[in-house]
Order: sequence, then structure tokens, then C-alpha cells
Amino acid sequence: LLMGAIEDWNDLEKEYTQLEEDHKNYCELLSRLSAAQQKCLSQIAHHRYRIKCILDLLNRASKAPHGEEERKQIADLKMKIADRKINFHEMEDNLPHKNGLYLRIILGQVNVSLLTKEAKFIYKKDYETFKLTVSYIILALAFLSGFLVSSRWCDAVLNFLLVWYYCTLTIRESILRVNGSRIKGWWLTHHFISTVCAAISLIWPDGYTYSMFRYQHILFVIYLSFVYVLQYYYQSGCLYRLRSLGESHEMDITVEGFMSWMWKGLSFLLPFLYFGYFFQLYNAYVLFQLSQHPLCEEWQVLALSAIHLTLFLGNVSTTSLVVVNKVRS
Amino acid sequence: LLMGAIEDWNDLEKEYTQLEEDHKNYCELLSRLSAAQQKCLSQIAHHRYRIKCILDLLNRASKAPHGEEERKQIADLKMKIADRKINFHEMEDNLPHKNGLYLRIILGQVNVSLLTKEAKFIYKKDYETFKLTVSYIILALAFLSGFLVSSRWCDAVLNFLLVWYYCTLTIRESILRVNGSRIKGWWLTHHFISTVCAAISLIWPDGYTYSMFRYQHILFVIYLSFVYVLQYYYQSGCLYRLRSLGESHEMDITVEGFMSWMWKGLSFLLPFLYFGYFFQLYNAYVLFQLSQHPLCEEWQVLALSAIHLTLFLGNVSTTSLVVVNKVRS
Ligand SMILES: CC(C)(COP(=O)(O)OP(=O)(O)OC[C@H]1O[C@@H](n2cnc3c(N)ncnc32)[C@H](O)[C@@H]1OP(=O)(O)O)[C@@H](O)C(=O)NCCC(=O)NCCS
Ligand SMILES: CC(C)(COP(=O)(O)OP(=O)(O)OC[C@H]1O[C@@H](n2cnc3c(N)ncnc32)[C@H](O)[C@@H]1OP(=O)(O)O)[C@@H](O)C(=O)NCCC(=O)NCCS
Repeated sequence: LLMGAIEDWNDLEKEYTQLEEDHKNYCELLSRLSAAQQKCLSQIAHHRYRIKCILDLLNRASKAPHGEEERKQIADLKMKIADRKINFHEMEDNLPHKNGLYLRIILGQVNVSLLTKEAKFIYKKDYETFKLTVSYIILALAFLSGFLVSSRWCDAVLNFLLVWYYCTLTIRESILRVNGSRIKGWWLTHHFISTVCAAISLIWPDGYTYSMFRYQHILFVIYLSFVYVLQYYYQSGCLYRLRSLGESHEMDITVEGFMSWMWKGLSFLLPFLYFGYFFQLYNAYVLFQLSQHPLCEEWQVLALSAIHLTLFLGNVSTTSLVVVNKVRS
Repeated sequence: LLMGAIEDWNDLEKEYTQLEEDHKNYCELLSRLSAAQQKCLSQIAHHRYRIKCILDLLNRASKAPHGEEERKQIADLKMKIADRKINFHEMEDNLPHKNGLYLRIILGQVNVSLLTKEAKFIYKKDYETFKLTVSYIILALAFLSGFLVSSRWCDAVLNFLLVWYYCTLTIRESILRVNGSRIKGWWLTHHFISTVCAAISLIWPDGYTYSMFRYQHILFVIYLSFVYVLQYYYQSGCLYRLRSLGESHEMDITVEGFMSWMWKGLSFLLPFLYFGYFFQLYNAYVLFQLSQHPLCEEWQVLALSAIHLTLFLGNVSTTSLVVVNKVRS
């Protein structure tokens, strides 16, 4: 036995020198990579600066009197510059990105860049699955708290979960944005405000107003989770289709296919979304009425009413704008 | 003007081909790096597996009867294996690490590895500064809420801040741990429990018990923030000294210097820490008394009492263990 162990060890020893070699090689690559990264980043910054100067010149030139020929040249150069900027964006996809303020506060200076398309796709998919899973849990808890256990304790757990969920969403969405997702700023703000909203519901003391609104609140949470589930099927459908679009090369056919799928999905989803938004408006109205009630002493009621109104306004305008833009293009 | 702009552009165009070259070079390095990474990781896993097999053999061998010579060989091989394991740990310092469950839930599959010593140091320093800054803010808010504005609203903001702070700490500390910090598990658990503790204080309804404990709670928060500030000076002192230790080469002198500095710091800090722990025990006692009071209806009181007791027990035993281990070595 002992001889066997010693022999194995000696074999392994030989392989170990190979591993050491590989590791040294890897460390060298790592330092070369960060040098190359730095170089690319500083060059892009330099180019950006130079281009800004050229644009300044062009703007001044286009103010001075000039002939047909010159106008064509200016327009031409501006086109080239716009193209170049797109190129820079594409290059930056593979370069590490700076964290925004929010991520810097929560996570610190850690690098959360996803440098390949594949990594980005996996991360986004993971984000959607996360939303789906937590939505189901919230749905279950809200049912429990609405129809089976009507104790303040159960409500507190539900509201805690909501606070945690929206908070986590803002973190993950900030990471997505750092990595080039085009999530509208409003949805991020929406999740910030929803965190505050859930937190205020959490500290709303038990009493007349709370018991008056409790049932409606739980119904709203149930409806919202249901909409999130629907949204999941739409968003993850888009994601998969966009990915296979990116991979395949028979562009024309697939883009059309994607568009028609997207419109079908959207026209199914939108009525539910708008119903949810008007539910929010209705919440704001009911809460406002409650806040005028003589028995109402809590500041939470008016605050929640204002928050629901804000959410309604932001959601309706953003979603409508997105849809209008989609119709146009 | 226009001619100038066009000339500049043409210059820049030349530089751009260089940038494109560099970027292609960078992308190639990136893919080579991830291949090398994969190779090292899988080789280490393979070695680990083989070593486990050898250890099994050795254990069986040491059970069988054997002479002096053999015993020496076994001990020798075991030593070598232990050394090898340390080598693996060192190699892994430069390799990406898998996120733990908590980070996977909060952040998803994003890679938060810090691959160089320098990056690790900066991250740790940033973490300490974060703690210091937020401690000062908490201190200010607690003073405000304790001595100037005694409204439930101000308490709520303070407790919110505490929830957020501890929550963020757990995230950052998980990142530190992924990157090889030896923070004891208890401190992480401590911050989890503290999050829950602050959250329960947040939803504690206003009433007899709340007003009885309010003042003591705020005093405790003030004391804790004060201790955090002291701790900052100790921890960041350790950090800087450890770093210069790692860089300099006159090992002996500096290690001794470090040890004597550390002991001085510790013996200054420890009385404050233990006072804080006994404050926690006292909190647990007062809360327990309150929970027995006929006017007490809230479950929060007993829950908080249990939490403070747990924190006291965990803190005292962990800190004492750490100190005892330091004395021994
Ligand atoms: C209206 C809607 C269906 C349009 O979705 P879409 O077709 O993906 O919209 P866009 O083309 O503007 O998407 C741009 C990016 O933002 C993301 N995105 C859009 N809405 C998002 C949302 N609500 N949350 C997170 N990400 C979102 C998309 O996934 C896409 O990401 P990518 O750049 O990584 O591919 C979508 O915005 C939506 O579901 N909004 C409703 C959200 C809501 O109201 N929630 C509360 C319910 S009452
Ligand atoms: C007792 C104490 C001073 C010892 O500190 P230390 O000398 O750094 O202890 P260790 O050698 O065990 O440290 C190991 C690692 O854990 C870190 N660490 C130790 N205690 C920590 C804490 N409370 N929070 C975060 N990190 C901590 C150290 O920075 C070190 O990190 P590194 O591996 O990245 O270098 C420290 O643990 C401490 O301050 N504890 C008190 C915390 C507390 O009780 N807070 C509540 C106040 S009532």
C-alpha cells in the first residue's frame, strides 16, 4: 500500500511541474492582459477627446459661409464620426466597465464586467429566472397571507420579502446596465421606489387604516406577481430569439420572425400591464381617501398614496413611450 | 477650419488602425487567458482528486502493522501533501473563484474575483472606509434621534439605515471571503442577525414597551458606532502594516514590529469590545424583563431579547477564541 502511495505521488510530482508551468504562464498572460486592457482604454479615451475637438472645429466651420462642396464634406465627416462612435461602443463591450455610484456604494470597487456575449446572455437569463422564482414565492406567500393566515406577522414577512426582492433587483439591474443592457432608467427607479413602498408598508402600524387597505394591498401584490410571471415569458422569449438572431446569418427572415413574435407577445402583455397601472392609480385614490378619514393618524397613508401615483405616472408614460417608439421604428 | 478638421481626422484615422490592432490583440489575449484559466482550474481539481486517493492509501497503510522506516515515510509524505495543498491555495489566489450561495442569490453568476494582491488590498481598504463613513453617519443620526428630534419618524430612518448597512456589509464581506479573506464565519452571521435585529426594531409598534426601551436602544447604537470607529483604526492599521510586511524583505524585524503594534492595538480595543458585549447582555436582560410586563403585547420584545443574547454569546466566544489563539501562536 505504502509503495503504491509513494509511486502515485511521484507520478503526480511530474504532473505538478507541468501545472506550475501552466500557472506561471497564466499569471504572465494575466499581467499582459491588464496591460493591453489599459492600453485600449486609454487609446479610446484619447480618440474620444480628439474627435470632440474635430467636432468643435466642424461646428464652427458649418457656421461660416460655405459652398455646396463644403457642406457635403462636413456632412460626410459627421457621418464617419458617428460610425466611429458606434465602433468604440462595440470595442468597449469586451473591455471592463466602471461601476456606477450605486454599485460602488453597495459592492465597492469590485469589477463586475461580463466580457463575452455568452457571459452576458447567461447573466441575463439568470436574472430572469431569479425574477420568476421570487415572483412565485411572493405569489404563494401573498395567497397564504390573504386567504389563510391573516396575521400581521405573515404580512410582515411578505413585506420584508418585497423589500429584499426589489433591493436585489436594483443591484442586479445595475450590473446589467454596467454591462451594456438598455434597460430604461425608469425601471431601475421603479424598483428603488418599490423598495421604499414595501418598506413603508412594513412599518405601517396596525390600526383602522391598515386593516381597511390590507386586503387591497395583498390583491395588488398577487396581481403584480402574476404580471411578473407573464413578463418573464415575454422577456425570456425575446432574449432567446435575440440570441439566435445574433448567431444565425439569414438575417432578414429572422428579424421579421422576431418582430412578429415580439408584437404578438407585446399585444398579449400590454392589456395586463395597463390594467396593473390603473390598479396603481386606484390604490393611490383609495389611499388618498383614507388619509382624509378622521380616524387616520398615520403619515404612511398619504406617503403611500403619493408613491402609487408616482409609479402609475412613470409606468404609463415609460411603457407608452416604449410602445410608440417600437411602432415608429 | 474645414481643412484643419479633415486633416485631423485623417491623422486620427491612422492611429485608429493601431487601436483596432491593439483591440484585436486584446481580444485574442482574453480568449487565451480564459483557456489558460480553465486549464489551471481543471488541473488543480485533478491534482486534488489524486491527492485524496493517495491520502486514502496512506491512511489504510498506517493502520496496517509497520516498522520505524515506514512510519517515517508516511509522515514525510503527509508533510509533502500538506505543503502541496498550501501551494494550491496560493495558485488559486490568482484564479477566479466560485461565488457562494448568498452572493449567487444576490448578484447572480457574475464574477467578483480580485486577481491581484493590489486589487485585494484596495478592496479591503475601501471596505474599511465604507464602514467608517457609515458609522459616522449612524452616529450623527442616532444623536439627532436621541437628543434632538424624538419622533418615531427619525427612529425609522435610523433603523432603515442600520438594516441597509448590515445588509451591505454581508454582501461586501462575502465578496472578501470569496477572495480569500479569513474573516470568521461568525462576523458574517453577526451581520445577518444584526440585519434582522434592526428590521424587527423597525416594525416594533409604538407603545409602552417601545418607549421604555427606546432610549437604551439609541444609546446602544451610539456606543456600537463608536466601537466601529475604534475598530476601523485597528483594522486599517493591521491592513497597512500587513501590506508593507508583504512588500518589504527584512522579514524578522517587521513581523515583530507588527506583532507588538497589534498587541498594543488589541489591548486598547478589547475592553471597549467586552463592554459592548456586556451591554448586549444587559439589553437582553432588560428586554426579557419588559416582555414579562403586563402591558407588553408585542412579540418583538421577546424576539429582540433572544437576538441580543445570541449576539452576546457569539461575540464573546468568538472574540475570546481569537484572542486565545493569538496568544498561543
Ligand atoms: C413594456 C415592455 C414589455 C417592453 O419590453 P422590451 O420590448 O424588452 O423593451 P425594450 O426594447 O425597451 O428593452 C430594452 C432593454 O430593457 C430590458 N427591460 C425592459 N423592460 C424591463 C423591465 N421592466 N425590467 C427589467 N428589464 C427590462 C429589456 O430586457 C432590454 O434589455 P437588453 O438591452 O439587455 O436586451 C417592458 O418594458 C415591460 O415589461 N414593462 C413593464 C414593467 C412593469 O410595468 N412592471 C410593473 C407592473 S405593474
Ligand atoms: C477581535 C478582533 C479585534 C480581532 O481582529 P483581527 O486581529 O483582525 O482578527 P483575525 O486575525 O482573526 O482576522 C482575520 C481576518 O478577519 C478580518 N476581521 C476580523 N474581525 C472582523 C470583523 N469584526 N469584521 C470584519 N472583518 C473582520 C480581519 O480583517 C482579517 O481579514 P484578512 O484575512 O483579509 O486579513 C476583531 O475580530 C474585532 O474587531 N471583533 C469585534 C467585532 C464586534 O464585536 N463588533 C460588534 C461590537 S459590539
